[in-house]
Amino acid sequence: MGRTLTYPKRTSNTVNRYNHRATYDLGAIHSIVNASQVLHVSFNPGPEDPFPTILPMIGQMGSFDYPSATIEEPLECYLHGYVSSRIMNLARKSEGDGLPICVATSKVDGLVLSLTPNSHSYNYRSAVLHGYATLVTDEQEKLWAMKLVTNSVLEDRWDHSRVPPDKAEMSSTVILKVKIVDGSGKIRDGSVSDERKDKDNREVTGRVWTGVVPVWETFGKPIPSAENEVQEVPEYINSFIASKNTQNQALAEGAVKVQLPPEEQS
Amino acid sequence: MGRTLTYPKRTSNTVNRYNHRATYDLGAIHSIVNASQVLHVSFNPGPEDPFPTILPMIGQMGSFDYPSATIEEPLECYLHGYVSSRIMNLARKSEGDGLPICVATSKVDGLVLSLTPNSHSYNYRSAVLHGYATLVTDEQEKLWAMKLVTNSVLEDRWDHSRVPPDKAEMSSTVILKVKIVDGSGKIRDGSVSDERKDKDNREVTGRVWTGVVPVWETFGKPIPSAENEVQEVPEYINSFIASKNTQNQALAEGAVKVQLPPEEQS
Repeated sequence: MGRTLTYPKRTSNTVNRYNHRATYDLGAIHSIVNASQVLHVSFNPGPEDPFPTILPMIGQMGSFDYPSATIEEPLECYLHGYVSSRIMNLARKSEGDGLPICVATSKVDGLVLSLTPNSHSYNYRSAVLHGYATLVTDEQEKLWAMKLVTNSVLEDRWDHSRVPPDKAEMSSTVILKVKIVDGSGKIRDGSVSDERKDKDNREVTGRVWTGVVPVWETFGKPIPSAENEVQEVPEYINSFIASKNTQNQALAEGAVKVQLPPEEQS
Repeated sequence: MGRTLTYPKRTSNTVNRYNHRATYDLGAIHSIVNASQVLHVSFNPGPEDPFPTILPMIGQMGSFDYPSATIEEPLECYLHGYVSSRIMNLARKSEGDGLPICVATSKVDGLVLSLTPNSHSYNYRSAVLHGYATLVTDEQEKLWAMKLVTNSVLEDRWDHSRVPPDKAEMSSTVILKVKIVDGSGKIRDGSVSDERKDKDNREVTGRVWTGVVPVWETFGKPIPSAENEVQEVPEYINSFIASKNTQNQALAEGAVKVQLPPEEQS
């Protein structure tokens, strides 16, 4: 495409701390969201409640109107939920653009162990989106989003299960569509970064081990249910597990090797 | 103690969906929080911004006033952050009880693959807390919380690094203390649970594999930094990694074996 789309910097999404790690690129932010098993979705329950609340949900970025859109292009966030849950009721009753929500996710890729606790860190990838949520009412769009979300849990699972959903299933499931207003991501990689005062202290460097412990999500051996009647674990499941495990480990270990910028302090 | 303390059920924390999986027990909720590498913290930036926002933070439950308190007793949530971050500025300026926030965390323990997408699920543990956040001003409490948080990342790391923090480090770090108003947890375990209509359909059961793919966090081989001068990886790091990996795998695989209650539907 030859262009890099970025989200506008507003007060609500501008990263102030360690801002050389921040990204506003649609592609980077959308990729972090789509790699997440769970998204944390924040909303305000109502004027009588002082606390915002958070619901863990499953979701994916995508475009129903422009199905050929790449990860770097403007996309909506589709969130899967139950018909009578509070967030769905609030979105249903919301006026104007929809229910203002925040979608966030973080993945730890490594423990960064420096000479002093102050310089300790994680290698991680995090993303935050702000937007207006409304309920998907078009049946075709809803079905498309349900397939998108199911396949994000396990590639190709939709077509390998009993589909399409029947009428009761369609009406008990609700899909929230979030029109994104802004977003930001933050990525920390590389190894440790200590301050001069500690690096020059032989008593400290002689006794404190520094480095990174990589961390990744492992998918284990599938455990069949008591009622399962398919003898062998299907190939699409085995290959999903094998490729995820290889990718996840490579990402966590590879993140350590990234060169830190000279101004990096922790 | 012979008693089980529970958080009060208020509108903001009462679980409506699959409420047999809900817990209000302090012990269960605090344990989920303390097992989390990252907490998602939600707050409202101000009246001019319609969106609540979420910040990923590191934190732990604990009691400075009653250091002998167990995980099942009333505890505060201590969150670690940078002195001039927005949430810290808001908490510093907040009046009354403090800044109303929500702390949430979720961990996926397995992909639950049922006959139909509608019955798909995760095995997971999630927790949500609501409370008022204020800045810790007492130096002793702050130091105690910094140690608590550092050791939550890697057991015993505090004493094996260069401590205590110097004056500059103490003033650049801020600890938020959240006085908890309510909380809830949700735990899904067991294997798949399909509906009768699908279980009786031989065409479906004959082709759709059902079961659970366990998922857990793996800690890899430590990668020393370029400047590390300690030849061998210390024992407290190796034993932390080994015991975490064993525990995490056992938890994810063990969750599958839990017997589901008869009313369980997905």
